[in-house]
Amino acid sequence: MFSRMQTKALPGFREFYPADLALRTHIFQTWRTVATRYGFEEYDGPPLEPLDLYAAKSGDEIVGQLYAFRDKGGRDVAMRPEMTPTLARMVAARANGLKKPIRWFAIPQLFRYERQQRGRLREHFQLNCDLIGEPGPLGDAEIIALALDVMRAFGFGPAEVRVRLSDRRILQALLLGAGVAESQLAAAYQAVDKIERSDRVGLAALLQAGGMAPEVTDRLFEIAGLRGMAAVDAALGRLPDGEAAGTPLRRVVEALDAMGLGEFVEVDLSIVRGLAYYTGTVFELFDAGRTLRAICGGGRYDGLLEALGGVALPALGFGMGDVVLAELLRERGLVPADVSTIDVFFAAVTEEDWPFVLALAHEARDAGLRAEYALGAQPVGKQLKLADARSARLAVVIGPDDRARGEVMVKDLAEKRQEAVARDQVVGHLSRMARM
Amino acid sequence: MFSRMQTKALPGFREFYPADLALRTHIFQTWRTVATRYGFEEYDGPPLEPLDLYAAKSGDEIVGQLYAFRDKGGRDVAMRPEMTPTLARMVAARANGLKKPIRWFAIPQLFRYERQQRGRLREHFQLNCDLIGEPGPLGDAEIIALALDVMRAFGFGPAEVRVRLSDRRILQALLLGAGVAESQLAAAYQAVDKIERSDRVGLAALLQAGGMAPEVTDRLFEIAGLRGMAAVDAALGRLPDGEAAGTPLRRVVEALDAMGLGEFVEVDLSIVRGLAYYTGTVFELFDAGRTLRAICGGGRYDGLLEALGGVALPALGFGMGDVVLAELLRERGLVPADVSTIDVFFAAVTEEDWPFVLALAHEARDAGLRAEYALGAQPVGKQLKLADARSARLAVVIGPDDRARGEVMVKDLAEKRQEAVARDQVVGHLSRMARM
Repeated sequence: MFSRMQTKALPGFREFYPADLALRTHIFQTWRTVATRYGFEEYDGPPLEPLDLYAAKSGDEIVGQLYAFRDKGGRDVAMRPEMTPTLARMVAARANGLKKPIRWFAIPQLFRYERQQRGRLREHFQLNCDLIGEPGPLGDAEIIALALDVMRAFGFGPAEVRVRLSDRRILQALLLGAGVAESQLAAAYQAVDKIERSDRVGLAALLQAGGMAPEVTDRLFEIAGLRGMAAVDAALGRLPDGEAAGTPLRRVVEALDAMGLGEFVEVDLSIVRGLAYYTGTVFELFDAGRTLRAICGGGRYDGLLEALGGVALPALGFGMGDVVLAELLRERGLVPADVSTIDVFFAAVTEEDWPFVLALAHEARDAGLRAEYALGAQPVGKQLKLADARSARLAVVIGPDDRARGEVMVKDLAEKRQEAVARDQVVGHLSRMARM
Repeated sequence: MFSRMQTKALPGFREFYPADLALRTHIFQTWRTVATRYGFEEYDGPPLEPLDLYAAKSGDEIVGQLYAFRDKGGRDVAMRPEMTPTLARMVAARANGLKKPIRWFAIPQLFRYERQQRGRLREHFQLNCDLIGEPGPLGDAEIIALALDVMRAFGFGPAEVRVRLSDRRILQALLLGAGVAESQLAAAYQAVDKIERSDRVGLAALLQAGGMAPEVTDRLFEIAGLRGMAAVDAALGRLPDGEAAGTPLRRVVEALDAMGLGEFVEVDLSIVRGLAYYTGTVFELFDAGRTLRAICGGGRYDGLLEALGGVALPALGFGMGDVVLAELLRERGLVPADVSTIDVFFAAVTEEDWPFVLALAHEARDAGLRAEYALGAQPVGKQLKLADARSARLAVVIGPDDRARGEVMVKDLAEKRQEAVARDQVVGHLSRMARM
């Protein structure tokens, strides 16, 4: 036997008691409902994958934090840190048989192992929505609208949630136009990505140490500071052929406007997203209220499916985690109120009434009612207390006198009323009352 | 970049394409619906746990097949092979605050690593239902009825599914009465457990090598062969105080009869269940049709919560996996038919109609309809083919002439009918048609 000390959950892993799980279920159901409205179908993959699946394409941050080990068969494996590589493999394996565009979503649990940061979670759940086989900007608008509609379904409006939107094709055109060399682009993206969270002097020093001229660094900061489609268009207008680079993003913004989602949209060239494989539109939903926490991020990754699975299909998608979302729902009072655990509680007056309790409760359950009864002989008063503790709205008391008349007593515990109901009508009666 | 060869899923892990996932969702939803009717609340725990959690109490089979490794922090951990130890820890941590009896269920993914058996799955999902804090036989009946009602909800009757029921207290009384020594009980249980799958001569030789007399071995086989409550009662009647040992199981059988589930029940003393920690009722649901595969197993484990969590609470529960269940559903044609992916497809006649498609489709989605449209300009005929491919029942065609009249064209693709509908009434019209 081992001591109680050893039986704690691992650091960074959550236990979901029923109240916690009820919120998780609310989140998952809302995710599923909205994704389904967009014609998305759910899929899933293994939570454990070959390590190689992640080494090649994931961002450095993901590779450095892999929850990896060697299994008993000598295979290097990792608990999945993200869903996209699994998705790419699954799509590649059946690419010819699947109708395009492919609209798929999943709700995987994802894992990461960071040594340093105590108290930080090592697992979370994430809604992943991906649209595969569609190169045009209406696909981008579709994916962004889906993410926004998820937030609207939770009860958030444009005062609470906004989407920051950029396009790597625009950023690339502007950076090259500003004198950034092709070979410096990756470093430039990283600097833009960090601009909100880092010291500019340090970032500039880093870029200049990499060979970027100080005036180019200044222009880079200016570009990263561009806000709104008009400002972006103006900057692009100063480049030869610049306007074309802005066309996809302009169409995305117009489509979101047409859907009535314009209030949520902010064009913001400081958005790059960490992952190396994005090729076009990139976006981030964030808490516009106070903390500016990111709620969701995504973008277009047209080259990835070919790199991972050998199938050249354009694709884009996003991931939305459950942790920040649950915090926001709690902060804004958008957690659904506890509902009662059961509809009806059955109580027996004497020992001889138990078979009737069992029969009737089972009949009620067959009719779809959530029903309980005391699992041992107890005074009726104690049984009704248990009914209260379980938040039952209705109780049925079965005693010898009522039984002799072919009746049972139905109590509305909320309204403090009771009435005698014929034995063969009681389940129908309860069903009607429970629906009211 | 890595090759496509390396990107296969690990052996024993499943990928769920949308059609597979639809069946999984049907299984999970049925599990949740029936558990909820019994007043059970869902919980969950970490998929990765300290190795120690499983070393002490699990059966030998589980400990030998742990998917275990050492993490980057030097901790010995295992992917959860079963849920009960996590449940015990969670209940122990809040034992005083939780109303008894505790009715909890979970649907964890569970893992095991067997080196030898190729082709066998290394993960599965399992419905776990546990009732904690109730020592009496009505608790046992409640848990068994829940398992049976799950099968009934899938469409199985007593011709397809039966429950084999025993009680370790009865088996112990009969074995001791037959001359089995206390010290031989564990070996005797193991022999009874293996009786259906093993050669009797070998089993007898093993028991006799352990010191059991040949006539005791014969009586052990007779006891394991007892079927039906009457035969068990008769055997108990030949022991001093034997009748009392039969009381709990007799009450369980009576309660299941009272619920109308008697046809499903077979008292069968060869049922022991592999896990060492069962203390009373043990049961197994099985495929009564052909293969006799086990669908679900469970029982009473009154000592376990104290051993694991230091809290003395009686408990019982069962686990039902998704793999055999899905096979049975497929074999018996009980898999729900594919439903259409979407309700309505929106098509644009000209480039200028797209903003109206976007606005109307988004409105339809806000009203809860599953809506799609082509994500790039295409001839109307091609758009309607896409509607067909997505099994849409309704299509809305938006063109300049109809728009000028403030109308759109609504097509019933199944009935091959169409009608003009006013723009501001189209979403309400579609909602009514989709519900029909």
